[in-house]
Amino acid sequence: MPVIALGLDFGTESVRAILVDSDGREVGSAVHAFEHGQILDALPGSTESLPERFALQCPADWIESAAIATKQALAAAGLNGDEIVGIGVDFTSCTMLPAKHDGTPLCELDSLKSRPLAWPKLWKHHGALDQADRMTAIAKERDESFLKRYGGVIGLEWFFPKMLETIEQDPEVAEAAEVWLEAGDWLVWQLVGGDSKSLVRSTCQAGYKAMWSADEGYPSQDYFDAVHPKLAEAVAHRMPGEMLSPGQVAGQLTDAMATQFGLPTGVPVSAAIIDAHAGVPGVGAAEPGTLVMVLGTSSCHMLNATKMVEMPGVAGVVEGGILPGLFGYETGQAAVGDAFAWLLKLLNRESFDDLAKDAMSLPPGAEGVACLDWLNGCRTPLMDGSVRGAFTGLGMQHGPAHLYLALMEASAFGVRWIVEMLRHGSADQSSSSSVDAGVPIDRIIATGGLPHHNRAFVEVYADVLGMPIEIHPSTQGPAVGAAVLGMVAAGPEKTPFASIAEAASAMAAVPEDQCDLILHRSERTQAYEPLYDRYRQLADAVAQQRI
Amino acid sequence: MPVIALGLDFGTESVRAILVDSDGREVGSAVHAFEHGQILDALPGSTESLPERFALQCPADWIESAAIATKQALAAAGLNGDEIVGIGVDFTSCTMLPAKHDGTPLCELDSLKSRPLAWPKLWKHHGALDQADRMTAIAKERDESFLKRYGGVIGLEWFFPKMLETIEQDPEVAEAAEVWLEAGDWLVWQLVGGDSKSLVRSTCQAGYKAMWSADEGYPSQDYFDAVHPKLAEAVAHRMPGEMLSPGQVAGQLTDAMATQFGLPTGVPVSAAIIDAHAGVPGVGAAEPGTLVMVLGTSSCHMLNATKMVEMPGVAGVVEGGILPGLFGYETGQAAVGDAFAWLLKLLNRESFDDLAKDAMSLPPGAEGVACLDWLNGCRTPLMDGSVRGAFTGLGMQHGPAHLYLALMEASAFGVRWIVEMLRHGSADQSSSSSVDAGVPIDRIIATGGLPHHNRAFVEVYADVLGMPIEIHPSTQGPAVGAAVLGMVAAGPEKTPFASIAEAASAMAAVPEDQCDLILHRSERTQAYEPLYDRYRQLADAVAQQRI
Repeated sequence: MPVIALGLDFGTESVRAILVDSDGREVGSAVHAFEHGQILDALPGSTESLPERFALQCPADWIESAAIATKQALAAAGLNGDEIVGIGVDFTSCTMLPAKHDGTPLCELDSLKSRPLAWPKLWKHHGALDQADRMTAIAKERDESFLKRYGGVIGLEWFFPKMLETIEQDPEVAEAAEVWLEAGDWLVWQLVGGDSKSLVRSTCQAGYKAMWSADEGYPSQDYFDAVHPKLAEAVAHRMPGEMLSPGQVAGQLTDAMATQFGLPTGVPVSAAIIDAHAGVPGVGAAEPGTLVMVLGTSSCHMLNATKMVEMPGVAGVVEGGILPGLFGYETGQAAVGDAFAWLLKLLNRESFDDLAKDAMSLPPGAEGVACLDWLNGCRTPLMDGSVRGAFTGLGMQHGPAHLYLALMEASAFGVRWIVEMLRHGSADQSSSSSVDAGVPIDRIIATGGLPHHNRAFVEVYADVLGMPIEIHPSTQGPAVGAAVLGMVAAGPEKTPFASIAEAASAMAAVPEDQCDLILHRSERTQAYEPLYDRYRQLADAVAQQRI
Repeated sequence: MPVIALGLDFGTESVRAILVDSDGREVGSAVHAFEHGQILDALPGSTESLPERFALQCPADWIESAAIATKQALAAAGLNGDEIVGIGVDFTSCTMLPAKHDGTPLCELDSLKSRPLAWPKLWKHHGALDQADRMTAIAKERDESFLKRYGGVIGLEWFFPKMLETIEQDPEVAEAAEVWLEAGDWLVWQLVGGDSKSLVRSTCQAGYKAMWSADEGYPSQDYFDAVHPKLAEAVAHRMPGEMLSPGQVAGQLTDAMATQFGLPTGVPVSAAIIDAHAGVPGVGAAEPGTLVMVLGTSSCHMLNATKMVEMPGVAGVVEGGILPGLFGYETGQAAVGDAFAWLLKLLNRESFDDLAKDAMSLPPGAEGVACLDWLNGCRTPLMDGSVRGAFTGLGMQHGPAHLYLALMEASAFGVRWIVEMLRHGSADQSSSSSVDAGVPIDRIIATGGLPHHNRAFVEVYADVLGMPIEIHPSTQGPAVGAAVLGMVAAGPEKTPFASIAEAASAMAAVPEDQCDLILHRSERTQAYEPLYDRYRQLADAVAQQRI
């Protein structure tokens, strides 16, 4: 008799609850939108405009929506809740908030609820651009070793820049913060207790977004002192909590939460994981050398390897950050689905359906049109949010199909750049240099919503990369990954699994005969060689000359 | 009692006949389309595909359409034809053809009518790319002095590359050619006789498109010999005809033509002029220092000056090429109206009307979007048909209005580059260098169809140039210019005018109080300074790195 785990997948606008059994069947699923969605214009109950780069969320939405979605998923599956053996949580990151020791978010205090910086900052909140730049500059000056694990750049969406923004911009809020933490950790904390003893933190979020490593912990107090004494003080005294890997047990579901979610008291809850990273166990990719591409609004490409290679350009390398015992490499592209939606709107069309046939019958290179898809900046390898997109090579004969293919090619060339960087251990090395310097990639799996809507797009990826790409049939890779972690948290006594790898393989891997495999066409792969060189020249010109 | 002249304005798809009296009143006008239009796909009566870069015309169309349009214009004006004192002709250029001594175009011979190269090559025929490149290279090697008058480049649309293409690609046609000539010269020849004695050529076409100058004539036989012995032979023996300036009398209308056109026999006909160049007398600009911008599908910017400055980048400098006694500088942009039509189609919209307001309320620089409008290559100053257009600086926040403004700005920056080149005598000199090295520009007049359809566009030009721009009210500048030349050909006995300048001022200049003057806004002009530098950087990157 298979047992069932619950995965809670917290996104930007909504949360998904999914029930997966130990044979890999998705027995129930439901999505519930956050009442306040993204808070971009004004705080709830206020008409005062927020600054342009702000993006906040409301913590009460997370709990309420997750409870509703869970009850709906149970109802859909015809379950009463007692069947659930474990709960896993994935969350957008770095989404973070200041709270009191008892778990109360500062934004729920009457005295602070009108202060924007008392609210959770969503991953895409860009108020800390200045702080991120300064923190990177100081780390470079001091030759901080942690910087090498992050490609030499501290991201403006990361934990400490967001924390420093509040310290500098609203010192009263910062002073009131007793605990600074990731939203995923806060959510797990609420499920398992909410008091100061029950707080644990995920090594995944800490590793990728707060420069933490198992060997060295957070950056040194000296470094933080050099940035801002209050930041050093906060890191030392306002960030309590044991570090746990995803899949380790954070605690058991409380009475109150059990009632609210329609689940039994005491169900074990796994430490949280970043949403994209949950896609790795979520597609059953538990072995090193498999690149998992989570393709959505933006994309995140994750790879596990058996060794650590510090390389400029990678967003982060974290030991045990995705799977225990392996080094998890995170890379990504800032605009994918976003870029296609933008082009569609620009071209004043309803869908790409009528363009896809024309676009795919064009030869590689879109008859001379080249593109850079940096509409949101370049995440990997440049880690530069300020660079922008381009179309070049435009002539009278070119139309919307050319721009569409060029955009797909730009996205694919971006992945090729990332793949070469990972293989060669450097974003600058030419493809003729030694592969041994980096980490191997011998399989590629695509997941997320985009590959299912747009197969043409994955074909272009395969042609450009010169490798077959497997499209994982689930559109809910991260949610399934969270359920895998929930199953693992239930432990080998209640489940058939002794490890994440075993659980992932059983619950999420696709049998070979059911796999949707996109093969590359070698004549197109060959044609893309010089076009990729041109893309890199365009990228260099735009990044360096700011044209 | 005012007298009346006829202007015949031959375009790419149609001919316009206009009747203008000596007081500047347009008393009648009519347009008639060419039966075969542009011949792009297959020769008349054939289904065999023409090569991609071919663009031909049919000579019989010119005569038939001109006769019909003339009779319609006379009817519209309520005239019987006897009132017409002179005829002027402007024509697209270089549109050229091979003919027999008796004026018969080779394409009208049964033995050759199935041969594409026996037909007139339209200005935009691009079959001679290879030949143009080779002729330029050989001229450079030999350090030919004529090259300096043309910015160092022989254009692929010019006379000798087109002639050489036929010599190399279809030697039988070349051997059958007794006379090689411009279509404008052929048309005038037909009006005044059509036999070998009555052939004259225009210094305008010869000067701008066949490297002819009053001092040196055509390039030397040695040069042509180095290119191809048959070309040298053809220049020496197959290009008869006296050179006349536009406005000089080529001959008198024959009986046959008079009957066909509904005009009296013996009306004097002026030597031909290039269509764009006719815009200069056509807007009454008879003084040096006035830049006349003829804005249409592409644009041609013409300037008369009192001195010759050889500068790389200018399409041509010809003594007396536009107005007698002055040096005519020709420059131009390869895609203007064309580029806007392309963008409109790309954006899937009917008109720019709904975008214009949004675009014009954006700050200079389209909030970060930059553009190169080289959809047809770059005419002035690069003289490079192979470079292509671009949009850069694209972000998620940008929409169609940003692209529209960026395209207008790119077009305007292109004019600024031309203006600076003319003023400084070099395309590379910075604006801080001496103005004395070039020729002065102290007034700008815009004519052609575009300024009347799109005022926003001229506003952007004025802002970028930091100068007011006068929009000439006639949309038919070249046709009026042809009529001015027809009036001059009639001579001072029959008309009130002793010179082109006098006729142009009386017939085409606009009284100051009726002038539509677009003033520049100095705060926008200032904002465009750094944006122009960015444009030049983008232009350099695209032209040099071929990104």
